Amino acid sequence: MVKIRNKQYPLVADWNTLNRVFIRPEDEIGRKTLVKYMEQILFGLHDFLNKHVGVTEEISLIKLAEEYTDTKINAHPQKKLADVIKDIINEIAPRAVNVASPYFIGHMTSAIPFFMVHLKAITAALNQNVIKLETSKVLSVLEKQILAKMHRMIFNFDDHFYLEHVQNTETSLGNFTTGGTTANLTALWVARNKCFPSKGNFESIEKNGIFEAMKTHDLEKAVVLVSKRGHYSLRKAGGVLGLGNQNVIPIDVDANRTIDIIKLKSKIKELQANKKTKIVAIIGIAGATETGIIDPLPKLADICQKHGIHFHVDAAWGGPVLLSEKYCHLLKGIERADSVAIDCHKQFYMPMTSGMVYFKDPTAMDHIVYHSSYVNRPGSVDLGIKTLEGSREANSLILDSALKIMGSKGYALMIDHGIETAREFAKMISQRSLFQLVTKPQLNILTYRLVPLDIQKKLETADKEERQKLNYILDDINIKIQRIQREAGKSFVSRTRLKNSPDDYNNNVVLRSVIMNPMTNIDIINEVLDEQESIFHKLVNE
Amino acid sequence: MVKIRNKQYPLVADWNTLNRVFIRPEDEIGRKTLVKYMEQILFGLHDFLNKHVGVTEEISLIKLAEEYTDTKINAHPQKKLADVIKDIINEIAPRAVNVASPYFIGHMTSAIPFFMVHLKAITAALNQNVIKLETSKVLSVLEKQILAKMHRMIFNFDDHFYLEHVQNTETSLGNFTTGGTTANLTALWVARNKCFPSKGNFESIEKNGIFEAMKTHDLEKAVVLVSKRGHYSLRKAGGVLGLGNQNVIPIDVDANRTIDIIKLKSKIKELQANKKTKIVAIIGIAGATETGIIDPLPKLADICQKHGIHFHVDAAWGGPVLLSEKYCHLLKGIERADSVAIDCHKQFYMPMTSGMVYFKDPTAMDHIVYHSSYVNRPGSVDLGIKTLEGSREANSLILDSALKIMGSKGYALMIDHGIETAREFAKMISQRSLFQLVTKPQLNILTYRLVPLDIQKKLETADKEERQKLNYILDDINIKIQRIQREAGKSFVSRTRLKNSPDDYNNNVVLRSVIMNPMTNIDIINEVLDEQESIFHKLVNE
Repeated sequence: MVKIRNKQYPLVADWNTLNRVFIRPEDEIGRKTLVKYMEQILFGLHDFLNKHVGVTEEISLIKLAEEYTDTKINAHPQKKLADVIKDIINEIAPRAVNVASPYFIGHMTSAIPFFMVHLKAITAALNQNVIKLETSKVLSVLEKQILAKMHRMIFNFDDHFYLEHVQNTETSLGNFTTGGTTANLTALWVARNKCFPSKGNFESIEKNGIFEAMKTHDLEKAVVLVSKRGHYSLRKAGGVLGLGNQNVIPIDVDANRTIDIIKLKSKIKELQANKKTKIVAIIGIAGATETGIIDPLPKLADICQKHGIHFHVDAAWGGPVLLSEKYCHLLKGIERADSVAIDCHKQFYMPMTSGMVYFKDPTAMDHIVYHSSYVNRPGSVDLGIKTLEGSREANSLILDSALKIMGSKGYALMIDHGIETAREFAKMISQRSLFQLVTKPQLNILTYRLVPLDIQKKLETADKEERQKLNYILDDINIKIQRIQREAGKSFVSRTRLKNSPDDYNNNVVLRSVIMNPMTNIDIINEVLDEQESIFHKLVNE
Repeated sequence: MVKIRNKQYPLVADWNTLNRVFIRPEDEIGRKTLVKYMEQILFGLHDFLNKHVGVTEEISLIKLAEEYTDTKINAHPQKKLADVIKDIINEIAPRAVNVASPYFIGHMTSAIPFFMVHLKAITAALNQNVIKLETSKVLSVLEKQILAKMHRMIFNFDDHFYLEHVQNTETSLGNFTTGGTTANLTALWVARNKCFPSKGNFESIEKNGIFEAMKTHDLEKAVVLVSKRGHYSLRKAGGVLGLGNQNVIPIDVDANRTIDIIKLKSKIKELQANKKTKIVAIIGIAGATETGIIDPLPKLADICQKHGIHFHVDAAWGGPVLLSEKYCHLLKGIERADSVAIDCHKQFYMPMTSGMVYFKDPTAMDHIVYHSSYVNRPGSVDLGIKTLEGSREANSLILDSALKIMGSKGYALMIDHGIETAREFAKMISQRSLFQLVTKPQLNILTYRLVPLDIQKKLETADKEERQKLNYILDDINIKIQRIQREAGKSFVSRTRLKNSPDDYNNNVVLRSVIMNPMTNIDIINEVLDEQESIFHKLVNE
């Protein structure tokens, strides 16, 4: 248990208390106390999480929920900061998920470098709002610079281009969002608006709406094409933007688990045969959420170029691989995209919540301009003029500082480690007779499942019908293994559903691993697999 | 200048460096250094900002921009954490905006209690992702609890209701967003989807899109009504959602500066006369961004109830006034809303970036459900099932802790102070002959302008034409005053444009003050006004 000295003052809401909590104290004792609290936050949490290398305390969700049912707001102060911190360390942390554990290899949330906590504290202490210059000043200018650095990483135009645009108040190379979801949404928002040029009384889809846009352009449908591995935020974007999420059309993947180019081409042909249908965008995935695979971006770029279709790349996951000299070639073709989404809180190892979207054309975001008379006046530096979100913290300062501390080579070490460890992981799976690799890791994500030996044998000769039955059994086994392992709280892989072979009826349950924690090594992975095997053996013997 | 001990190790990206920055150090010296950094962040920034009570260092934007034009990412580490922090304190902070200054009374961004920095550091250290249970566990449960507390603050249903819904995995009382913009967007997204029930082949607007929705329901237009004082995010929402931002129809305000109910009713009548038009929502403003005024919510509720129209209240600014026993009556009628938006980073005094949206009906958000096979499976607790955003930090923990530390009464002290100080401010303006109050503060926002005595005289007898000319002169004067005061960097009020009287041709420039910093007192306000007068006198004598 963590102990923090507990000064005795009464818990009342009055101006004295308010002064104490609001103004940071000026005397030495007050300062020392506040620093002590920060120490508790940094190391109290750290020590706890280090001692409990597993992912969470074993407690049923139902039991947990029962403790959180009081719905009245307390009138008077209930706790001092010291007690709040103590409770978070002693009560909340043990029941949260230790995403920093090297055994937590199931999701795209992981350990972050310790300095990120400092940087986040700085942004909170400065509390700038980068929506407008008047509440951010130098941070707006700094944000434009880091946006240009990232744009250059992706599109690599020449010095002249960046000198022209880096601090240009008329153009925008991209913007910060609150994550990949709104980055993808912003990209498709721009793509949608671009698609419907003004004509007669119709000015823009943004102003006049979709119904007018369709009528004016004599259309009935506007669609977006992406492989079946597309993130669900893309469907959501279709829904939000009023296109309809069924018009975000999923294209099958081929044997490489990437978008089937032949099927894509035939879908385009089919859609274009109907003059009432417009293709708003084609999306390439650069690091699929479930499998980590990267679509053949150059081929997609060719297709988009040929048909004049907006080419968006969802690199929310894979974008930072561009920092790796060794593996950036995997993203070849991304420089031909019209827009690119990249998350900061994924492989830039930043704390939640931060993403980015970039546009090759520095005027593309003119399609989503909004002004108001008290901020965001035309021609101003105000960054909020062309963003989905309104008020925003200065996450740009965190990314800028992190790049200064790590360098692209520092990031590359982590990226390379993830990819190479995942490849070793895959090797180990093929060496264990009980496991079957489902998707090979192209980046640092892989999927696999446990297949008991007797079922393996049966699968060899099973017809389609039988295989389906066997797959149901396997689904059940793998769901149980994932659940039991998660609940035991020592390690964690996630699960999803994928087709094992193109002619399977249904998607089958697979276990999914994401290797992004640089402390996750092959010994740990062996332990995780050992535990899964032992859970399976226990299941069989029950 | 702040000094931090600078240990000599080489700036290279290798595994040693990576280990040092990634794993929080285990030895005492390492720990002490990290704590020292936090101390610098807490007090280095604080002391600087306290010494420089003004809002920003005087430096031209153009000169500033010139320093931020390098667009190449450094390969090797450039700086150690110590130097990054030092630079932020010495180079960035002086050129950022001191939003914590009690002289910064121009925007809705202000000082936050010091403990908020600690709480933000905690969320970063835990780095939970509340999109799903598997990356948040207890935080998902805690978030549902605080959502219920806020819902109760707004709608005040009985114990039975909250006991049923607080931890119900099938229903949702609201969710956290990244701000008022996405809170409003989420509310209108739900309202839009509700408006178009399934019929024949048409399932939902979310699935089939707006064009199908309109055709199926034999409509041509779907509109939203809000007063001219509506936040620009509402227009943006109309654009994003595909309704068209011209279909977010602005209704004039009346002499009270609130929505003109007579004009609203006649607009409804006019719209309903056309059977091809559907009213998606009517919005009441509870704390207009520019003037702080609150629309007559009970009257709007009556109208919405009568016509069966979704009633949304944008209480991004004013929502927390519900915590004040003394002034909560100003928001009477909010409990009859179908949805309510409230910002956390405004009058809940939380760091950027956090907002919330609430729905009276716990099933309303079923209209925006999204599942995927690796997270957010049907029936799970996963909070990401019904949110616009994807991955999200646990801002709920900050709000929960803040309410424990402050109590509703602690918040009420600040709310009451803001309202009462603004009212005194207004009195002082009427006592100064050079100033004219434009909008009286209902909450803690007021607008006014400087009107030279000779122009005041002329205005008394001027006809409409002449008045317009005089207003142009006044616009020019007030723009200059605001700009010069801002650039001098000691204090800051913002400016916007409003009509001074309903029959003015144009909106006139007004100065705008927002009193939310509890340290802003009447002496400071006097200084701000003195400075404005003296700027004016200098202008005249030039």
